[in-house]
Amino acid sequence: MVTTGPEGSAPRRRRGRPGHDQAAILRAAVDLFNRKGYDATSMGDLARELGLTKPAIYHHVSGKEQLLGQALDDALDELTAAVAEASRAREGTTAYERLRAVVRRSVEVLVAHQPTVTLLLRVRGNSEVELAALERRRWIDDRLAELVADAVAEGALRGDVPPVLVSRLLFGMVNSLVEWYRPGGAYDTATVADAITAIAFDGLARNETRNAPGQFD
Amino acid sequence: MVTTGPEGSAPRRRRGRPGHDQAAILRAAVDLFNRKGYDATSMGDLARELGLTKPAIYHHVSGKEQLLGQALDDALDELTAAVAEASRAREGTTAYERLRAVVRRSVEVLVAHQPTVTLLLRVRGNSEVELAALERRRWIDDRLAELVADAVAEGALRGDVPPVLVSRLLFGMVNSLVEWYRPGGAYDTATVADAITAIAFDGLARNETRNAPGQFD
Repeated sequence: MVTTGPEGSAPRRRRGRPGHDQAAILRAAVDLFNRKGYDATSMGDLARELGLTKPAIYHHVSGKEQLLGQALDDALDELTAAVAEASRAREGTTAYERLRAVVRRSVEVLVAHQPTVTLLLRVRGNSEVELAALERRRWIDDRLAELVADAVAEGALRGDVPPVLVSRLLFGMVNSLVEWYRPGGAYDTATVADAITAIAFDGLARNETRNAPGQFD
Repeated sequence: MVTTGPEGSAPRRRRGRPGHDQAAILRAAVDLFNRKGYDATSMGDLARELGLTKPAIYHHVSGKEQLLGQALDDALDELTAAVAEASRAREGTTAYERLRAVVRRSVEVLVAHQPTVTLLLRVRGNSEVELAALERRRWIDDRLAELVADAVAEGALRGDVPPVLVSRLLFGMVNSLVEWYRPGGAYDTATVADAITAIAFDGLARNETRNAPGQFD
């Protein structure tokens, strides 16, 4: 089964990049899911929000679960690409450099896709679509833990904190962005990425030795 | 209107520390709210979960919002106490020491009250009870940002990252615990608290100067 575009002309794929109207429906759905919770949101709520009839919405999407799947893919596709890139060992880069790069890239993805990443981070696994998303999150978490372990092994990171714990906490800090970051607010993406890498890699404690070697108290 | 205890004897306060049966109802409610979302959970769902009739539940609690309020208070009372203690400047302690202490204490509170803190961190402000909880969270956030600023002012913390950003990220890292920490799992509370303070204050990068002053490459 295919849906048709706004002009009722060309057939349109169900998944993948949504068309213009579908994109507007998806944005409104994600916003509602984040405000009310996915389970508490009905297609009727969505229709009211958009000022459309339910049949008009069903013309574009098969239902709530399709919208959830598209939203989670939007977040997961970018994060997966960033992590896959960072996981690929290659000439002239260290694991430490790739870890720093994926932290920065994750900040950019979270800011650019904040609504869908917010939804992703709240997924509880109540449906097939949610379980599939959790599976993809696990793949990401496993790659990040490996990358941390590689950076420890090459001697760039301290070895006294378990790598799994490091990656959980490091990306816990990154993910916290979706809860409080406001685009157009006091801090731009680069400032936040700088702050996270400064805290995580160099620490908050003022370190005289960083700038003035040989001075200890 | 008051409810009565299990023996139908003494009148019992509506809020405050719940009685035995109320505590069991509250635990089940928090679990359901976290699994299904607060808005999607009905008192009927809760009755089914507990194998009770709805009137039996209403004997103990006035409704869903009372349960939410008690749950959020459970999380907020402990966190507020920890932050109030840390905010109190006093002879012989530095802001830096009190900040490190409140990070550790927050980890303990999150582990001990994981279900209610999880609920707290997902509150969206859809009702009076939720708005009141968000107001209390803001008070906590403001005190923590002040404490970070004090620690920068006394020269213990680096001053090149805005204090508000530091406290957001530091406690974003702490709060991420509720998403992945499993009691009885691989890491006990002290290990997690050690990991967080190590990462946040000293940084992940291996630092030769920490143990071997004078060695630079």
